[in-house]
Amino acid sequence: MQRLLPSFAITLFLFGAGIAQATDIPDGMGPLPTAVPIPADNPMSAEKIELGKKLYFDPALSLSGNISCNSCHNLGNGGVDNQRFSIGHKWQRGGRNAPTVLNAALWESQFWDGRAPQLEDQAKGPPLNPVEMADISEKQLMTRLMRAGYEPLFGRVFGAHSLNYDNTAKAIAAFERTLLTPDAPFDLYATGKGSISNAAKRGMLKVDEIGCTSCHAGPLFTDNSFKRFAFGTDPGRKAVTGKDEDDHFFRVQSWRNVALTAPYFHDGSVDTLEQAVRIMAKIQLDTKLSDTDAYDIVEFLKTLTGKQPVVTYPVFPRPLGKALDFHD
Amino acid sequence: MQRLLPSFAITLFLFGAGIAQATDIPDGMGPLPTAVPIPADNPMSAEKIELGKKLYFDPALSLSGNISCNSCHNLGNGGVDNQRFSIGHKWQRGGRNAPTVLNAALWESQFWDGRAPQLEDQAKGPPLNPVEMADISEKQLMTRLMRAGYEPLFGRVFGAHSLNYDNTAKAIAAFERTLLTPDAPFDLYATGKGSISNAAKRGMLKVDEIGCTSCHAGPLFTDNSFKRFAFGTDPGRKAVTGKDEDDHFFRVQSWRNVALTAPYFHDGSVDTLEQAVRIMAKIQLDTKLSDTDAYDIVEFLKTLTGKQPVVTYPVFPRPLGKALDFHD
Repeated sequence: MQRLLPSFAITLFLFGAGIAQATDIPDGMGPLPTAVPIPADNPMSAEKIELGKKLYFDPALSLSGNISCNSCHNLGNGGVDNQRFSIGHKWQRGGRNAPTVLNAALWESQFWDGRAPQLEDQAKGPPLNPVEMADISEKQLMTRLMRAGYEPLFGRVFGAHSLNYDNTAKAIAAFERTLLTPDAPFDLYATGKGSISNAAKRGMLKVDEIGCTSCHAGPLFTDNSFKRFAFGTDPGRKAVTGKDEDDHFFRVQSWRNVALTAPYFHDGSVDTLEQAVRIMAKIQLDTKLSDTDAYDIVEFLKTLTGKQPVVTYPVFPRPLGKALDFHD
Repeated sequence: MQRLLPSFAITLFLFGAGIAQATDIPDGMGPLPTAVPIPADNPMSAEKIELGKKLYFDPALSLSGNISCNSCHNLGNGGVDNQRFSIGHKWQRGGRNAPTVLNAALWESQFWDGRAPQLEDQAKGPPLNPVEMADISEKQLMTRLMRAGYEPLFGRVFGAHSLNYDNTAKAIAAFERTLLTPDAPFDLYATGKGSISNAAKRGMLKVDEIGCTSCHAGPLFTDNSFKRFAFGTDPGRKAVTGKDEDDHFFRVQSWRNVALTAPYFHDGSVDTLEQAVRIMAKIQLDTKLSDTDAYDIVEFLKTLTGKQPVVTYPVFPRPLGKALDFHD
């Protein structure tokens, strides 16, 4: 289903190639990958990315005209909204903490329960979710985008008569594939181009020593697997598969940019990264962290905040001199 | 109170100087002014504009963490939200249609009733308005901005210990003074650099002939006065002054970018620009427009949509690994 397109990846995503590598970093850790998997049926193009950016920021995707993708996955804000549960249509709250869009192109599945294989599938969720953007149907949403004036933009990207829900998701996914955060302090350290604090170095070794990185593995600090996390009442992946063996299973979240995405966990119930680290160590590894170890690990996690994407705010198509059909 | 700073204006705002002028445009009409009045106590600087941009887009200005200035004055969207009444805290609706922020730096007063003399005053309204951003007090908001990490940014712009509500408003106002929309098709036509349709030209002459431009005067297409508009139940400026003679008086709205700001009027009750034009002609000028005249005038108004500001989406300060205190 997916293939790497190295030439495109090099054009768009080669933010820096390391040469010298720090010698003390544990096996498996490394800088953020710069090549993004591109589905064969959704090749990237500059015009598609630009269209996807408009759609990503445009509140006209919601029934009320008040909610955009960026409302909950705010690019000024680590790709999240820092809410426990996001605020949707008519101020309804969602049931899980909004994951970051940043680097999501690098995950092997989307959502806390992994129910969407890739970004295109994920993007088709929120518009029709009654507690999120609350559109009544694909048709209603497409009619609104047509009225807004999106059709010629789709035409240039996907060909004639191409304004449809699948292509909306494809364009958004293409834009999201540009939302990488390279050159985190850890990445610069790992490639010999920068330094991190001694506390962060101790934390880096500690997460390896106690076993955090058996799941939060590799340069993404997730092995993309599902693991049981016996915390809270949410059944997690069981709600998708119906299998008891998936009860309380969740996708292992990446640590990339984790210092920006408070509050923590699938239910957003934990306000600080330090507390989240302590709970994970206790529940998953039966390890009670000392104050120093907890501090050091948090300092290490802070070094995984990368350079945030530079995005020019788009101008949306709109019908001139006419209101769109927004309502509660 | 205010003075022009031509050198600054030239640096930042000189988007193009016309030479040849179209000879058929009515007296008074002309391209958008490029010099913005700057209050003596709030000089512009690049750092202040950047801080103001962060504050403008940051939903941390609201009690819920869900509403930013840009929510209702969306820069992708003509500086408005295309709602009849904006959606605020807990999905409450405001009482008047949100005016555009675009070119607002050029108006002589702010709000439909003109109750704010300048942008700094306007910016201090929404955060503390219980149906908008709903902050309980200046102190609560400042505490949140402090926790978010804004203090050093204020320090660089305003000096030590300068994180306060006045300076928040000053920074936002400085950013807003950059939000001009020059080079509308009419402006290019007026300066001999472009053309407009024959219908638009007829409309341009018609608004002069029937008297629209006695109030929608000059290059801004507003004389900044207050005029009686006997439409709807809103008492307008009377609610500010308490004077019966101000009953149903509203600020004359600029026509700049009016094709982007549907729905229309202070109560957002009119969905199309054509209908708005017909109502204004009838109520204000006792003129029943022919279909052709209404069409032509709308075509002219569409030529007043300028180049929209190019804005790089900001990254907000946030406490690393800690949630902010957002709540309903």
